[in-house]
Amino acid sequence: MGEQVKRIARELMYEGAILKVYKDTMKFENGNEEKWDYIYHHGAAAVVPVLDDGRILMVTQYRETVERETLEIPAGKLDSAGEEGLLCATRELEEETGYKSDDIEWLLTMRTTLGFCNEKIEIYVAKNLKLSKQHLDENEYVDIKPYTISE
Amino acid sequence: MGEQVKRIARELMYEGAILKVYKDTMKFENGNEEKWDYIYHHGAAAVVPVLDDGRILMVTQYRETVERETLEIPAGKLDSAGEEGLLCATRELEEETGYKSDDIEWLLTMRTTLGFCNEKIEIYVAKNLKLSKQHLDENEYVDIKPYTISE
Repeated sequence: MGEQVKRIARELMYEGAILKVYKDTMKFENGNEEKWDYIYHHGAAAVVPVLDDGRILMVTQYRETVERETLEIPAGKLDSAGEEGLLCATRELEEETGYKSDDIEWLLTMRTTLGFCNEKIEIYVAKNLKLSKQHLDENEYVDIKPYTISE
Repeated sequence: MGEQVKRIARELMYEGAILKVYKDTMKFENGNEEKWDYIYHHGAAAVVPVLDDGRILMVTQYRETVERETLEIPAGKLDSAGEEGLLCATRELEEETGYKSDDIEWLLTMRTTLGFCNEKIEIYVAKNLKLSKQHLDENEYVDIKPYTISE
């Protein structure tokens, strides 16, 4: 199938705050060419923080992409392309929730935007949570609350 | 929280084949400003096609974003921003797999790139599949194969 679809050019069209936007020129077995969008993103990690009583710490924050607050598990971008997902998840857990964990296990890897973006999200589960100190980024506004699974 | 984080400008920076790329200027309660990336995408739909024997039809296709073939459930972009996810899933099912279904039910909605993109993916389950005719887009190369859950 590598012979049926081939990239013959990649051009950087725009560099955003966290993204690079490219225009790819693709050539097909039938001789046709098409322009495809390609977005480069460092990658991200997320973590499901499970309290000793089974409740899960969730984050409420404002997301401009949907123009409303969302309820999510703690997550964040990798600091650099090479950063280990586990390191990022450990950091985001403490920064956003104020809890530390010495028991973080990999759960799954998601690639949900394969059509146009390389973003990979590594998801972990954190147990044995110990209260530490929340230290949000300067322009970060999030609310933390534990939820039971049924909630 | 709407008062803590506010968009004060949005500028179209690049228009790709299927995406529009914007630069948002965000203002925070603390007086700071930041540039955020915002990618507009019509949205997409995906479908889990379940054969009568319980196997699931999966699609192998080349994804330039990861530079390899991937195994996925059939999915595709909405034809336009207003298209119903169900309509799109029904169309993609027949186009990609060659099967029709009169029993398609909504399973869940995913928004996995909320940090920078509005893409919403509606996911459906299709049962009672009837063989029809695969009709791929001109430049679309995919392989279809049924898999058991354990595979």
